[in-house]
Amino acid sequence: MSRTAFFQQLFESIADRGREVVGRVPAKPDGTGELAALGRALLSQRGEASAAALAQDLIAAYRKLDRPGRRRFFTFLGDELSPDPERVTEAAEAYRRDPSPEHLAALTRVAEPPRQELFRRMNMASGGTQTLVDLRVALIDELKDAPELRAVDQDLLHLFSSWFNRGFLTLERIDWRTAALILEKLIAYEAVHAIQGWDDLRRRLARDRRCFAFFHPALPDEPLIFVEVALTRGMAGSVQPLIDPDDQPGDPEQADSAIFYSISNCQTGLRGVSFGSFLIKQVAAELEEELPNLKTFATLSPVPGFRKWLEDVRMPVPKTGGSRPPGSELARITARLGDGAWQEDTAQLKELQAPLCSLCAHYLLNVKRDDGLPRDPVARFHLGNGARLERLNWQGDTSAKGIAQSAGIMVNYLYRLDQLERNHEAFVNRKQVKAGRSVVQLAHGAPLPEPLEHVT
Amino acid sequence: MSRTAFFQQLFESIADRGREVVGRVPAKPDGTGELAALGRALLSQRGEASAAALAQDLIAAYRKLDRPGRRRFFTFLGDELSPDPERVTEAAEAYRRDPSPEHLAALTRVAEPPRQELFRRMNMASGGTQTLVDLRVALIDELKDAPELRAVDQDLLHLFSSWFNRGFLTLERIDWRTAALILEKLIAYEAVHAIQGWDDLRRRLARDRRCFAFFHPALPDEPLIFVEVALTRGMAGSVQPLIDPDDQPGDPEQADSAIFYSISNCQTGLRGVSFGSFLIKQVAAELEEELPNLKTFATLSPVPGFRKWLEDVRMPVPKTGGSRPPGSELARITARLGDGAWQEDTAQLKELQAPLCSLCAHYLLNVKRDDGLPRDPVARFHLGNGARLERLNWQGDTSAKGIAQSAGIMVNYLYRLDQLERNHEAFVNRKQVKAGRSVVQLAHGAPLPEPLEHVT
Amino acid sequence: MSRTAFFQQLFESIADRGREVVGRVPAKPDGTGELAALGRALLSQRGEASAAALAQDLIAAYRKLDRPGRRRFFTFLGDELSPDPERVTEAAEAYRRDPSPEHLAALTRVAEPPRQELFRRMNMASGGTQTLVDLRVALIDELKDAPELRAVDQDLLHLFSSWFNRGFLTLERIDWRTAALILEKLIAYEAVHAIQGWDDLRRRLARDRRCFAFFHPALPDEPLIFVEVALTRGMAGSVQPLIDPDDQPGDPEQADSAIFYSISNCQTGLRGVSFGSFLIKQVAAELEEELPNLKTFATLSPVPGFRKWLEDVRMPVPKTGGSRPPGSELARITARLGDGAWQEDTAQLKELQAPLCSLCAHYLLNVKRDDGLPRDPVARFHLGNGARLERLNWQGDTSAKGIAQSAGIMVNYLYRLDQLERNHEAFVNRKQVKAGRSVVQLAHGAPLPEPLEHVT
Amino acid sequence: MSRTAFFQQLFESIADRGREVVGRVPAKPDGTGELAALGRALLSQRGEASAAALAQDLIAAYRKLDRPGRRRFFTFLGDELSPDPERVTEAAEAYRRDPSPEHLAALTRVAEPPRQELFRRMNMASGGTQTLVDLRVALIDELKDAPELRAVDQDLLHLFSSWFNRGFLTLERIDWRTAALILEKLIAYEAVHAIQGWDDLRRRLARDRRCFAFFHPALPDEPLIFVEVALTRGMAGSVQPLIDPDDQPGDPEQADSAIFYSISNCQTGLRGVSFGSFLIKQVAAELEEELPNLKTFATLSPVPGFRKWLEDVRMPVPKTGGSRPPGSELARITARLGDGAWQEDTAQLKELQAPLCSLCAHYLLNVKRDDGLPRDPVARFHLGNGARLERLNWQGDTSAKGIAQSAGIMVNYLYRLDQLERNHEAFVNRKQVKAGRSVVQLAHGAPLPEPLEHVT
Repeated sequence: MSRTAFFQQLFESIADRGREVVGRVPAKPDGTGELAALGRALLSQRGEASAAALAQDLIAAYRKLDRPGRRRFFTFLGDELSPDPERVTEAAEAYRRDPSPEHLAALTRVAEPPRQELFRRMNMASGGTQTLVDLRVALIDELKDAPELRAVDQDLLHLFSSWFNRGFLTLERIDWRTAALILEKLIAYEAVHAIQGWDDLRRRLARDRRCFAFFHPALPDEPLIFVEVALTRGMAGSVQPLIDPDDQPGDPEQADSAIFYSISNCQTGLRGVSFGSFLIKQVAAELEEELPNLKTFATLSPVPGFRKWLEDVRMPVPKTGGSRPPGSELARITARLGDGAWQEDTAQLKELQAPLCSLCAHYLLNVKRDDGLPRDPVARFHLGNGARLERLNWQGDTSAKGIAQSAGIMVNYLYRLDQLERNHEAFVNRKQVKAGRSVVQLAHGAPLPEPLEHVT
Repeated sequence: MSRTAFFQQLFESIADRGREVVGRVPAKPDGTGELAALGRALLSQRGEASAAALAQDLIAAYRKLDRPGRRRFFTFLGDELSPDPERVTEAAEAYRRDPSPEHLAALTRVAEPPRQELFRRMNMASGGTQTLVDLRVALIDELKDAPELRAVDQDLLHLFSSWFNRGFLTLERIDWRTAALILEKLIAYEAVHAIQGWDDLRRRLARDRRCFAFFHPALPDEPLIFVEVALTRGMAGSVQPLIDPDDQPGDPEQADSAIFYSISNCQTGLRGVSFGSFLIKQVAAELEEELPNLKTFATLSPVPGFRKWLEDVRMPVPKTGGSRPPGSELARITARLGDGAWQEDTAQLKELQAPLCSLCAHYLLNVKRDDGLPRDPVARFHLGNGARLERLNWQGDTSAKGIAQSAGIMVNYLYRLDQLERNHEAFVNRKQVKAGRSVVQLAHGAPLPEPLEHVT
Repeated sequence: MSRTAFFQQLFESIADRGREVVGRVPAKPDGTGELAALGRALLSQRGEASAAALAQDLIAAYRKLDRPGRRRFFTFLGDELSPDPERVTEAAEAYRRDPSPEHLAALTRVAEPPRQELFRRMNMASGGTQTLVDLRVALIDELKDAPELRAVDQDLLHLFSSWFNRGFLTLERIDWRTAALILEKLIAYEAVHAIQGWDDLRRRLARDRRCFAFFHPALPDEPLIFVEVALTRGMAGSVQPLIDPDDQPGDPEQADSAIFYSISNCQTGLRGVSFGSFLIKQVAAELEEELPNLKTFATLSPVPGFRKWLEDVRMPVPKTGGSRPPGSELARITARLGDGAWQEDTAQLKELQAPLCSLCAHYLLNVKRDDGLPRDPVARFHLGNGARLERLNWQGDTSAKGIAQSAGIMVNYLYRLDQLERNHEAFVNRKQVKAGRSVVQLAHGAPLPEPLEHVT
Repeated sequence: MSRTAFFQQLFESIADRGREVVGRVPAKPDGTGELAALGRALLSQRGEASAAALAQDLIAAYRKLDRPGRRRFFTFLGDELSPDPERVTEAAEAYRRDPSPEHLAALTRVAEPPRQELFRRMNMASGGTQTLVDLRVALIDELKDAPELRAVDQDLLHLFSSWFNRGFLTLERIDWRTAALILEKLIAYEAVHAIQGWDDLRRRLARDRRCFAFFHPALPDEPLIFVEVALTRGMAGSVQPLIDPDDQPGDPEQADSAIFYSISNCQTGLRGVSFGSFLIKQVAAELEEELPNLKTFATLSPVPGFRKWLEDVRMPVPKTGGSRPPGSELARITARLGDGAWQEDTAQLKELQAPLCSLCAHYLLNVKRDDGLPRDPVARFHLGNGARLERLNWQGDTSAKGIAQSAGIMVNYLYRLDQLERNHEAFVNRKQVKAGRSVVQLAHGAPLPEPLEHVT
């Protein structure tokens, strides 16, 4: 049976299922009948006169669904459009006995969940890609209550990983010439340092800044991910001047550093498709080409898990059952952090700097997950890209969020294009974290209780 | 194991295989060492610092391969990067026992041939998509001698069907404002009525013509398929005036018919990905919008299998073992066709018109493949789109090719946008061929021997 | 002497003048030496190696001038770069005696102020056009104090009228896809109903609105003039709903009227170059093409001179020297307007409606300037375009500005494309004002004192 | 009287003249009545409802004129739309007595030929600029027979010099991505080394070539001037390899020289508006930016006047009345050139090289027009741009045209961007010709008769 004939049969089967779905679910009392429209769209596939036209109907019907309607549709996708394990077992067995191309093709065919082909067909419709991305947003929202839908989600992720392949993306510079339609999405999507309206945005796109985004041709109005870069003299250690709308723009020709101070994924529906690593490297390459005076490419990054870890480590259950001295230095420090007053008090700021920076360096260098990679997600991302943990900045982010997450500490990850590959290899294969000397020294002084390693 | 970890492992396995490949194949005596470069690219994946950079290396190495080198690479893809049947059987069994999302995910993962992921990674490189399309051209060329590579080809086709989904294509008008770079490809790719250089092309893009092509954003300089349309008064029945470079352009506002007289697929590497049906329908919709005076949308098409069928039917082995009368009219007619003289002789032309047109109508209406669909591929395509077999045109194509394939007969398939769906349904589900009355009547008079049905 | 040689000589003369200018004006004590830079630019014209390079220097020097420096430069343009009347008289005399092409060419050459050629040469520089437009803004600012510079201004206007000829402009639609760079200029330039930031702007560019602007290729980031249009059901009579940022957008397909509710010239430097008439007519034609459901094209316009005229007419000096009855109705009405309370008081609003609308209709229909054209500038503009004064709208603009200028009355001027030419002709040649019946009837009831005509 | 009122009156006068024109010229017997249409357009200006609409009519009527009709129109422009010398004299006199801005404005107004305003109004029509450029082509064609129309031509030139100001032009790269519509114009307009069809063109746009053109926004499909550049190793001395369609393209990254081997003005209608100097300098700047490896920017130019000068100098009338020795070397050389055989004969080629190259060097360096500038027009152009006469190339152009014009010699003019200004100044002010040492030495050896300077 050819692949086409197979899908022909599949679609008739979908239509049959569609009838059942419609039969099972009574028309809504308010008469909107969205699901019925969906059912009709599915049923009409029997004729399959025009795949694109039909896809259009299905898309339109889906868009009218309310939340319960969507949930029923997802359940249908998960229940009915999964592979048939009997047939897969048979096909695998046949292939094992005779590994011919025919047997392999048959195996591949029956093992692929039929909903993947349904998604591909829905994509033929105008606006299909956008609808499928939106569909996954809705699906992710259901996963908490319906973990059995994870298989559907995996199929969408698999498809999106293929469709949103780096080779299909375009890198575009965002500046004050960009369409307002796009710019307002930057305001909405900025996830690290919120943009306070159009004046703030304008400053972030001034001549001493750069902003780049990845786009996909099928979603021309939707940035997938974007990065904001400040061109500075020296490696910036504090984020507040960078996001101050009243700061005067400097001369980009005088800058020697490009500071990546914010990177935001825009599409919940593309969660799990990785763009950030490509984006940073390509933007660094672009900037190097545009401004030969740039010598340093580094981030100014938060340490989002630092204070959470401090909380976890403060009062561990002792391994041996013995009690830890309640008056340890670590406990004293963490106790003081809870009291917001310290950040307004110069003396306390000074007093806390050394122990907190040491603890943070330790956290970034030595605290790991079970797989041996750093516990901090931002560290994991940049170190995985081959960057180096270059410097800690005390009071680098004095915003409420910065204080709450990382006691105001920010970090520079340094991207040296000629060392990324080697660093990456050491990180992936040997779990080595490359760090600047100052960070390593800081970590040595961390006021830690003895059995600390058991709690990480 | 997560999908990412899985592929991590896969790539290390690829690298190991790469080493073997390199080890097995001695460096070429002329020192070009293309395969060695490929091997290094594969091997270096162990580090996988930068997937895109690595993909670039692999692409570059592939491009340097000579034909034997490519064959070795294809064999590597087919032998080493296929699913492991043992693991598939196990995963299928596990899924059968407990159809959980995790088991399904595991099954899907092991059943997908690893080369699909390799192709997706190669696509990350600049120029990756083009290289993969070229790679399939080379692969198709090997299939004759190496049918075992069909599974590799199936995977590429599967991937391309997903990537070149209708939703990702753009329809673009081609005219004299189009880049010469594109236009010269039209000259090269025209498959139906060859374009004789730039003057001929210019006539085909004059104001009473339209030409549209599908493009994919990753191949901006490569039309995937294009269609040529003539705007005429009345439904054109003869192609020679349409392709005469000296013909004077008419006024498009005066035309009432859009004649699709040539449709050419451009990319051998995308064989099996279907674009034509979408293209014709969308172009018809565009033209209807642009020129409301157009009332008729029809093709002027060849009947490429007609004379071949006549040859087959002339001397069938009688079913019953009895002998057919050697002097039958059909035999006389087909015998005369072999002698090229008839086409220059008005009397013969007149004499042959009725029987040949009748036979051709019969061929198109009644001669089927085993699956019940028409034997003629062009008929199958347009009828499958929901078009109607409207008219036969005697001496519609007097070129050598036209005479050789279809005794000079051309056919109009009529596209009535409001009937496409119904016709399509009848064709797919009930194998019905919609045809104009004149064609049906012609078919009744076909001078056929009795046991004809046995040979089709 | 060829034109080129003539200008060669001219430029040497300019350089000589430049030296004098520099000599006359001591270098600024703060050492900036802007004028010296200008002088050098002028002086270096002796070599004139590269006109474009030199123009660049001159432009750069001009941009550095402070206000006194610019004034000196303008004076130089006016004093030194005017035609020489002796030479003009001679050339005219020679041409009168012998009207040969040579004599005519000589006359044209000496009569054209040399600064026109200087401006053309300055325009060769990158950014030249923008600088010249800016220069005229600065010049206009000086005209109050230096009326002798009007001749320089006339030359710039003459040049700009030629360069910004309708044939060189492009009409562009402005919407939410437009660059922020352009959009922020709309906010800045809107002269009729101020735009209150980006949210307000966004509403004005929603799907039931249209905005178009003229651009010149040499000033791609500068709209020259733009018009805002609301697509409504029925001819809108009140502007507040149209500029309410919270108003819900309607369906443009359901609209039957296009209301031009704001038209703003953007460039002070192009004052006197007329764009508005072209813009309205072309936008009306565009909208008619895009939305065939539109039947009515009309403005919603202020009556900016109404209350000023009421003030003028309230207490005229009686023609005969006798006194007018102080208790006349007109006086009573105008007296009450001064007291802002009326607009909050329903009873007064009702009482004032009839007399004020009648007075306003009278003002628009019957009150003229010395040249016989309407006194109201907005009326003059639209009636001159061939529009018809269709309707008065009581309380059409309840903003402070609307109350202050026109007692809140707004007017619809109706653009019927098939009658514009006839109306225009009647207006220009016979000073006839085309008006709707309701407006004419309103005017009859105006409570006017007898000798009113003397004060208009 | 305002300028507007003035032109209002002017147009009424035009309309009156229009009536006369129509009255004077009987409708054409073939009933086409083009001129009548023109007359109606002119007459209807009395109403002047819509300047743009009217301009459209006038343009359309003009386009229908046959040659006699155009001639009548030109005569009308020249006779009726010239300044009135009486009024000019009066205005000049008034201005002389009182040089007020008002008197100057009045003078400028009456001295400008009214046809300039007519041309500006015609330009408002869609396609107006193109029509005016075409109009000048037709006018230039009439000038031979009607020298009195030169004043009309001067006005068009004056207007075009203003409209086609460098500041309004865009430089565009032409390559194989350019629209066929533009490319076919290159084939048509190439004036130096004819392009032999599309294959030849394609070679000239290959990767080791560059082609740039100036465009004006109002004529987007019409290149104004274009230059062809070859990227070579070493300064090319022979043009045949550069225009050989079968030559293999080199690597532009390896090139050290950019050879400007052809520059063609495209628009007869813009004759006298100078673009070439700007084009060469800007293209050189672009190339320097794109390819930093380029060190030499030079032309490979013909010496179009060389053999004509040789003819002139061969038999001068002796200054003193005495006779020149008929057997002089110069006479022998020139006599042999007439016999085409020499170019096929290696011995003769060798023998002639030294004297001809010396003569050519002398011609370029020392032979001047009355104004002291070089007699050779190509030399005048490049030296005037500040280029240096660098090298003579024997047998640089072996085409028939090359032999006929310059005995096959070609010249390199070297553009050193940092010396252009100084060279230009020396050339313009002191008539100095900058030349390479080898050229100067060559010139010393020229076999010239004594009284040669008298004949140049």
